[in-house]
Amino acid sequence: MTASQSAKKISASGGPKLAFRPLPVPQVDIRGFWGDRVDAVASRTADILYDRCVEARMLEQIDPDRPSPGVVIPFHSPSPDEAASQGAEFTGSTVTTQMFWDSDWGKTIETAAYSLYRRRNDSLERKIDAVIDMYGKLQQPDGYLSSWYQRIEPGKRWTNLRDCHELYCAGHLIEGAVAYYQATGKRKLLDIMCRYVDHIADTFGPGPGKKKGYCGHEEIELALVKLARATGEQKYMDLAKYFVDQRGQQPHYFDEEARARGTDPKAYHFKTYEYSQSHRPVREQDKVVGHAVRAMYLFSGMADIATEYGDDTLRVALDRLWDDLTTKNLYITGGIGPSAHNEGFTADYDLPNETAYAETCASVGLVFWASRMLGMGPNARYADMMERALYNGSISGLSLDGSLFFYENPLESRGKHNRWKWHRCPCCPPNIGRMVASIGSYFYGLSDDALAVHLYGDSTARFDISGRQVELIQTSNYPWDGAISIEVEPEAPVEFTLHLRIPSWSRKAALTVNGAPVDLDTVMGDGYAAIRREWRKGDRVDLDLEMSIARLFANPQVRQDIGRVALARGPLIYCVEETDNAGQLHRITLPRTAKVEAHKEQNLLGGVVTLSAIGSKEAVENWESGLYRTDPPATEQAKLKAVPYFAWDNREPGEMLVWLRDG
Amino acid sequence: MTASQSAKKISASGGPKLAFRPLPVPQVDIRGFWGDRVDAVASRTADILYDRCVEARMLEQIDPDRPSPGVVIPFHSPSPDEAASQGAEFTGSTVTTQMFWDSDWGKTIETAAYSLYRRRNDSLERKIDAVIDMYGKLQQPDGYLSSWYQRIEPGKRWTNLRDCHELYCAGHLIEGAVAYYQATGKRKLLDIMCRYVDHIADTFGPGPGKKKGYCGHEEIELALVKLARATGEQKYMDLAKYFVDQRGQQPHYFDEEARARGTDPKAYHFKTYEYSQSHRPVREQDKVVGHAVRAMYLFSGMADIATEYGDDTLRVALDRLWDDLTTKNLYITGGIGPSAHNEGFTADYDLPNETAYAETCASVGLVFWASRMLGMGPNARYADMMERALYNGSISGLSLDGSLFFYENPLESRGKHNRWKWHRCPCCPPNIGRMVASIGSYFYGLSDDALAVHLYGDSTARFDISGRQVELIQTSNYPWDGAISIEVEPEAPVEFTLHLRIPSWSRKAALTVNGAPVDLDTVMGDGYAAIRREWRKGDRVDLDLEMSIARLFANPQVRQDIGRVALARGPLIYCVEETDNAGQLHRITLPRTAKVEAHKEQNLLGGVVTLSAIGSKEAVENWESGLYRTDPPATEQAKLKAVPYFAWDNREPGEMLVWLRDG
Repeated sequence: MTASQSAKKISASGGPKLAFRPLPVPQVDIRGFWGDRVDAVASRTADILYDRCVEARMLEQIDPDRPSPGVVIPFHSPSPDEAASQGAEFTGSTVTTQMFWDSDWGKTIETAAYSLYRRRNDSLERKIDAVIDMYGKLQQPDGYLSSWYQRIEPGKRWTNLRDCHELYCAGHLIEGAVAYYQATGKRKLLDIMCRYVDHIADTFGPGPGKKKGYCGHEEIELALVKLARATGEQKYMDLAKYFVDQRGQQPHYFDEEARARGTDPKAYHFKTYEYSQSHRPVREQDKVVGHAVRAMYLFSGMADIATEYGDDTLRVALDRLWDDLTTKNLYITGGIGPSAHNEGFTADYDLPNETAYAETCASVGLVFWASRMLGMGPNARYADMMERALYNGSISGLSLDGSLFFYENPLESRGKHNRWKWHRCPCCPPNIGRMVASIGSYFYGLSDDALAVHLYGDSTARFDISGRQVELIQTSNYPWDGAISIEVEPEAPVEFTLHLRIPSWSRKAALTVNGAPVDLDTVMGDGYAAIRREWRKGDRVDLDLEMSIARLFANPQVRQDIGRVALARGPLIYCVEETDNAGQLHRITLPRTAKVEAHKEQNLLGGVVTLSAIGSKEAVENWESGLYRTDPPATEQAKLKAVPYFAWDNREPGEMLVWLRDG
Repeated sequence: MTASQSAKKISASGGPKLAFRPLPVPQVDIRGFWGDRVDAVASRTADILYDRCVEARMLEQIDPDRPSPGVVIPFHSPSPDEAASQGAEFTGSTVTTQMFWDSDWGKTIETAAYSLYRRRNDSLERKIDAVIDMYGKLQQPDGYLSSWYQRIEPGKRWTNLRDCHELYCAGHLIEGAVAYYQATGKRKLLDIMCRYVDHIADTFGPGPGKKKGYCGHEEIELALVKLARATGEQKYMDLAKYFVDQRGQQPHYFDEEARARGTDPKAYHFKTYEYSQSHRPVREQDKVVGHAVRAMYLFSGMADIATEYGDDTLRVALDRLWDDLTTKNLYITGGIGPSAHNEGFTADYDLPNETAYAETCASVGLVFWASRMLGMGPNARYADMMERALYNGSISGLSLDGSLFFYENPLESRGKHNRWKWHRCPCCPPNIGRMVASIGSYFYGLSDDALAVHLYGDSTARFDISGRQVELIQTSNYPWDGAISIEVEPEAPVEFTLHLRIPSWSRKAALTVNGAPVDLDTVMGDGYAAIRREWRKGDRVDLDLEMSIARLFANPQVRQDIGRVALARGPLIYCVEETDNAGQLHRITLPRTAKVEAHKEQNLLGGVVTLSAIGSKEAVENWESGLYRTDPPATEQAKLKAVPYFAWDNREPGEMLVWLRDG
């Protein structure tokens, strides 16, 4: 079966009426703030990803009939400079091959796909076509496809789901396939992946003789939902649901699998199945635990299944997990997972700033999860958080020009945390690349009779609702300015509800429809204003959000932030950098009484709004006598200037600090 | 040559008149605060050290004619509980033998020696005698003595001074030998070590055919000075000077030695000879760098040589290094060496509290260094620091009952840093043991016509000056009280100068001699009051030091202490513990306006003065909505109670904090 044979099956058959699905990327044209970001990815990042992946020329040497582990070339070969910046253990000559390289290809193809839609790039398209051709050659007659297992560990497929990323890789190739199909209309990879998924569905599931397993690194679940939506194939959706439902059931699949391999399940490197959120069935989970990216991908898949099946048992679990994450385990930037040890969560309220892991992928994963919670209906609880992670902890991972990356996103730096060209575990660059390149799909949610506007910004969306084509044009300088004008242009009058998010950070919002004020109190629900009417050509909605500057304080149980304050304006979290302020940022105090002012700086960092204030600073003079003394330090005035967190480390390297001392 | 043959040679021949040498331990009887500490060591620690060392029975199996590496038993075998508390890599069955075990025996013998003087313990004395007998059997005909090189690496002696602690072990056995001789009058080990040192002097030195090396871990230098002082043998002093002078000279001995072993000097694990302070000649060093204990031992040896040879070039270098340590690289507790990585120094002003390494041995080493700086004359600059390290960062390493130990001495704990019974690198227990047991020798410095009183506390000292025997009796409840009464009891009238330290932490001091007030301004020099007179039986000096409570602030360049305040009273630094205060100590603020009061608590922690104040605390109520909000946290009153830092973790495990938030 190919995609074309089964298109649209699921929209006819399954899912509750109120499910809000994202618009496909090609249906939203992005300008303004996000337009610049997408252009950076389309013009720089997409090619960089391909070049870095292909440096290994792993795929070019494939001879599917003759597995040849001896000739594998490392997937990526950093320059000596980069190697040095990434720690001594990583040298150009000793990079090891990685079992999850197909996933990096999947995300690279996905980024390329969205970028090709944005900006024609014949050279890149030819190269991606060639990669797809090679995957086609690699695929085995029964549909199986894994460059690791076919070339490095032949004969061992499906023997270690816990550790070896086999279904995870399939998931990313599926996402790449769907994106490439949507962006280019080419279905070769989609057909390859459908054949592979058919094989997976024959191998796993509730039926007799099938394996009862699931992947140690979640991803296949949300990918199968995407594939089901793109192909209309209910079987794929059901397989996604199976993987979600089966996770953490007893007897534990990973135990049995380990014993089948002849190893002791207790010898598991990460000690606890919390690492992969398989410590208990998903509906019984109430704490976000383990590897942060895995958690986000699982919860994303769960949210999709909750949406598609109207499954409230999943929704209840997801709300508990959401509470746990957002009230105890979340950086103010939308970063998550403080520890490098498990790339994930530690203890409640443990949020170290300088050593924050806060992997770019984890924040991207939070965007995925939050966006999928919106599938169950517009709710600012999720959309505000999606916006927080989008504008801060995720895009901080990509330099403004699209060429350099962060893996960790700390909230404090002494000057040595700088962007790199690549990483020994290159998951983040293609992840932030594909997220940015597909940003249009996060703007809107479409149900049978409603459109939810989750994000604001200069853009044009096209969609069908109640059988009518509608164009929706946002004009705005968001996030620098809170004035948003929305023109609704249906081909013919059509009734539907327009849901408009009123962000919780905005202290005042004003809404008019065709110039007539709307009393927000009468139309608000879950943080969205709902306007139901018959929309006609030329209808115009104006929303004015007060883009206020806020001082933010952390729950006092967060010991690392006690006595500190962070600055925000609209959805943006700010930080101070050494280049704008004298060094030793720890000495700065922002008094409660200090006035904080916003300044539009057109020529700074691609055009940003900066914040300034007169703070104070401990003086370092007169300390000759020793390190400690009974006289408190004198203080002096300190002008401070803050820039959006996402834009840090795009100039001279230096110290950075989000949480200023509160005075 | 044995000790008896050459006694007193050096006091007749060498050294400047103004050298102040410590009194031997048996000449000072200690009561009061330090008496309790010494009793804990004599009644518990000394036996524990022996038992732990002998668990290995390494020495009992020695057959010096037949090196038998196969039968070596680990030097120490922790219980599973201890192993668990010390990290996963340390299990009872996989402890590796260690090349520096002779040093642990040396320090154990030294602790036992001082303890035997304090308190008769026939069983322990018999056991130590047996250990000494075994060392006698092990010693080779040419005098060489090393259980590691004789049993584990036969034939490789003197091939890796950089890494293998060979002279370091000799040094600690020398210190043990001197102590055992002084405490028991038994000279067997002293004679063994003299024979060994004669061999070392034949092997190393400026003469033709001798090796131009020195030890990677300093210790032999200060040990040789002790041996020279105990035996009067100038040759030992000169060898100490040679090791000091030779250090860091080019061509670099460690380079040449590595090449002679057939290894690349650049392959050195620690990358830089700063690790062992051999990166440049000692007189050219101006930064404290590398391994903190090594640095302290080197500087101690340098100070001894500066004292004995009147060498101002060394003194100038030592003062530079002292400045660097005390104005940029010192915890307020007298702890040093923030990093576990090199067990030593990092960057100026880098003093993390929770992750502070601040090894017990390093603080003990600072006591050693400071006390030896006093050899060049009384100077409160050094004595105040010696007192700081003594009362805080060093004895924090020993539980009040003498049975449990800290290796690291952080200034903040979340509750998981607790005392252990032993350690895989057991250097600290015998080091703090021997320092405490020999505390009397740190109280006084004796020159030809002066006695300096460096430390205060209930005690009796006996010494000869200008041919007269003198007894000096201190009566005091120091450090809990600042009133000190000193009776001077010469056998006959004798003129000498009595130097009395006026600690810099005391804001007011009053001094009387036989009831007559002394105008301190007229007698002060380098922080000491100097009283020269003919002392007669019954003379009495009264010193009253204001035991004031102080708030201490760190240089603002120490980012970890910015906006924080520490409490001190007299020489003691205080901390708050969870058991006396509610948890989440980070939430406490001590307002500048809060009155801090002292309370003598006879039944707490063996009798201490606690401090109390009414502080404030961020409330954790009303944070249901999320981790971050625009309303600052409400504050509530918080009664806080602080205990001396050295006494922490002697009750229920819990959080601990030295640096409180300053409000």
